[in-house]
Amino acid sequence: MSETADERTADILDVSGLQGRREQEVTDKVVASFDSAKDERFREVMQALVRHAHAFVRETRLTEDEWTAAIEFLTAAGRITTDTRQEFVLLSDVLGISMLTVAVNEPNLGDATESTVLGPFFVQHSPRIELGGDIAHGASGEPSWVSGAVTDTDGNPVAGARIEVWEADDAGMYDVQYDDGALAGRAHMFTDAEGRYRFWGLTPTPYPIPDDGPVGRLLAHAGRSPMRAPHLHFRVTAPGFHTLTTHIFVSGDPYLDTDSVFGVKHSLIRPFDRHEAGTPAPDGRRPEGTWTSVRFDIVLRAE
Amino acid sequence: MSETADERTADILDVSGLQGRREQEVTDKVVASFDSAKDERFREVMQALVRHAHAFVRETRLTEDEWTAAIEFLTAAGRITTDTRQEFVLLSDVLGISMLTVAVNEPNLGDATESTVLGPFFVQHSPRIELGGDIAHGASGEPSWVSGAVTDTDGNPVAGARIEVWEADDAGMYDVQYDDGALAGRAHMFTDAEGRYRFWGLTPTPYPIPDDGPVGRLLAHAGRSPMRAPHLHFRVTAPGFHTLTTHIFVSGDPYLDTDSVFGVKHSLIRPFDRHEAGTPAPDGRRPEGTWTSVRFDIVLRAE
Repeated sequence: MSETADERTADILDVSGLQGRREQEVTDKVVASFDSAKDERFREVMQALVRHAHAFVRETRLTEDEWTAAIEFLTAAGRITTDTRQEFVLLSDVLGISMLTVAVNEPNLGDATESTVLGPFFVQHSPRIELGGDIAHGASGEPSWVSGAVTDTDGNPVAGARIEVWEADDAGMYDVQYDDGALAGRAHMFTDAEGRYRFWGLTPTPYPIPDDGPVGRLLAHAGRSPMRAPHLHFRVTAPGFHTLTTHIFVSGDPYLDTDSVFGVKHSLIRPFDRHEAGTPAPDGRRPEGTWTSVRFDIVLRAE
Repeated sequence: MSETADERTADILDVSGLQGRREQEVTDKVVASFDSAKDERFREVMQALVRHAHAFVRETRLTEDEWTAAIEFLTAAGRITTDTRQEFVLLSDVLGISMLTVAVNEPNLGDATESTVLGPFFVQHSPRIELGGDIAHGASGEPSWVSGAVTDTDGNPVAGARIEVWEADDAGMYDVQYDDGALAGRAHMFTDAEGRYRFWGLTPTPYPIPDDGPVGRLLAHAGRSPMRAPHLHFRVTAPGFHTLTTHIFVSGDPYLDTDSVFGVKHSLIRPFDRHEAGTPAPDGRRPEGTWTSVRFDIVLRAE
């Protein structure tokens, strides 16, 4: 918390005297109601939640109409949420809570690849592809040859690491947003004995987070763009290593500075080199149109 | 906010150095993303929400599993919420946020009747009854003769004030929780020329807030009782006066100290006097069984 917030809260407590004490009494009573929770961590988290939520209400002097608007917002978010549309994750994302949780749990130790948000579009059970395979499965877009190696922090290759990748098509849609339930633009593969991986993906394009619900209305009211900086998702797991959840971003993209979920980290920006139609790719394929290539070496930290 | 919370947050910022600054950067970026919101109050509220939500995550060092549990909690709350079941209101109630919002907006000025939470069971368009009528409409319970007068803070009667009353039956159920959609245990009436009102209600009995959803599981995990102290809801409106939303509580009840939504205020506790079967009521009626009577004079503050 910034000093400003503390000072503001202190002001309210000082200025309003009896009223401030009455409000504090409510908070104290609610905090105490969790005193007998047996799960110590649950008690700690809930009491902190109560203290911070109450400080918010007191500092803003939240009106009853605003309280009602908040209840209606959460209700609308609940109504639009389905197995494939997660409005509460979007809310956490646009308030930077997801990214802050990543920052708290995935400290940048300087030698391992940095993490970013998981986002709402990860699904279990993606199709498996062989190294060099294509993840598109019908998702449209410019082909992109993605390759790299997975190592530990000493530079030793990690063989057999599972690499999950997923991305939107060039209309900005993930497969789970399609009507037909098809899996497309996602796959998993395993690194070879030298820790290497390679696959055909799609050059990432900018797209708005789903903005036809309450979170979209919130962004519009804030004058904020719903656009995400173009990216390709990675989730890398290997026995003995901390799971890495990250993206790579396209260098030079105009949305890098205003990513709607605050997911961009400098170390994750990569050049996607564009090649003329007909130029042979590293696997000998000659795509009909232009294609891009990008290299992303991944460093896992031990558990 | 208590000093403890501030100190704890300060500790985290001081102790972790670079890590603390990285986390603060996330918060600063998200706060700044609301800078260009045109609606000044919206900006103020959202920026405070971000600061307090982020302070909560940082202070508790919220884990990714806990973040996931929070998303799942909100999703489950959304799923169980219907037109007649409002899990988000229950959540606000059991975290004392509803009662704190009342405290912030309805300061106790010493001369008007105190407010308490609206709760999730208020509905528009209750049946109108004449003074002395019965609100039960089939809701079961011990009859209770409720009467009083509505005045302004100078003691002048308020004629034609609209009094909405609603309560649970003796099985602890509100009509909106019935399967048949009947309206029962609720009504509205208007005060007479002297500001007086009277009606037959039911002696309030303790009941649990709906606890078969995520909020109920939260209370169970906290070792908290879902029981509400027995009460009868009032909402009183009159031109030129601030709307009063309140309850009366039954004196001597064992749940007064542990009301699950923190709604009890000392000034709202009233004796419900019990009378033998056959004793004539003020309107001449002789209920077959025992009945109670309670007086509740209401003082409205001018707008």
